[in-house]
Amino acid sequence: MSDIEFIKSFLTIHQNFPKKGVAFCDIFPIFRNPLAFEALITHLVHHLVSNVISNSPEKKIDVIVGLDSRGFLIGPVIALRLGAAFVPVRKRGKLPGLCERAGFEKEYGTVCKRHRAGTNGVVVDDLIATGGSAAAAGDLVRKQGGKLLLYLFIAEVITLNGKDKLDAPTYSMVQIDGSE
Amino acid sequence: MSDIEFIKSFLTIHQNFPKKGVAFCDIFPIFRNPLAFEALITHLVHHLVSNVISNSPEKKIDVIVGLDSRGFLIGPVIALRLGAAFVPVRKRGKLPGLCERAGFEKEYGTVCKRHRAGTNGVVVDDLIATGGSAAAAGDLVRKQGGKLLLYLFIAEVITLNGKDKLDAPTYSMVQIDGSE
Repeated sequence: MSDIEFIKSFLTIHQNFPKKGVAFCDIFPIFRNPLAFEALITHLVHHLVSNVISNSPEKKIDVIVGLDSRGFLIGPVIALRLGAAFVPVRKRGKLPGLCERAGFEKEYGTVCKRHRAGTNGVVVDDLIATGGSAAAAGDLVRKQGGKLLLYLFIAEVITLNGKDKLDAPTYSMVQIDGSE
Repeated sequence: MSDIEFIKSFLTIHQNFPKKGVAFCDIFPIFRNPLAFEALITHLVHHLVSNVISNSPEKKIDVIVGLDSRGFLIGPVIALRLGAAFVPVRKRGKLPGLCERAGFEKEYGTVCKRHRAGTNGVVVDDLIATGGSAAAAGDLVRKQGGKLLLYLFIAEVITLNGKDKLDAPTYSMVQIDGSE
């Protein structure tokens, strides 16, 4: 069993949650098992070091941008291992002070703050489905003059083609067929 | 400057946020500085190891219980360092599958899941203000047969006496006077 299959074995699909017709992929079982959690973080950091940082012009990641709230589960751990800043993206009205804003449909007024211009950023979330919120987070990085190196996810619902909305490379450790 | 003063220097108080008359303590500046973030985690883990684990009957922490969403910023990192499980507490309707529920006023229907009976738990959040949501999370640990060893926070607003609501020891790295 590869580390990818190991992590996939912890993901639980719940049909008709949170509403009828929707399949929900629960990533929390990973976090209940310290070995699975470490395997996940090691896999993602290894990808960043061996594929992203080493192939980037400036050979560094300055900022990990994490989406509220499940991006908060892995973004800070990854930032700490890389010696990078962790910056949150939250719904409008959830962050005080000077913020940058980007829109995503009606419900998701995302907010990012004080990201320095010219920095190399990676957007992190647990899952990519339709890709709307990740795209908005990427817009925030660029609005503040940053370079977006990667969109990073634990899992991707491949049947929803969320990657098509994103204009930077993406990496997901596990691929899920949404029709399963 | 002690590590406590170092961390306190990153906290930013925003008056009249999110509404008039409320002072908001922003902890995100800590996470933008990798050294401050590491100092925070090291301080909290040091407290757990030197004061909590060593004085507990079973000499271990099995589960870190983190409140959505700012408890997600530090709970998983701490769980990983201790080799403990990380379990979330989220609002009602946010977690699928079999969940334990506890109430907190009207707005906060908290949910915790599959916490094993007899385990030693620590509840983690960024800040204790009135203490209502932390108390509900503690109820969840006990409802599932767990022992609550500690409520752990980055900061405490001492003028609100939130600790009075909690029936287990608490520890906060930084104390803030809410009238400042």
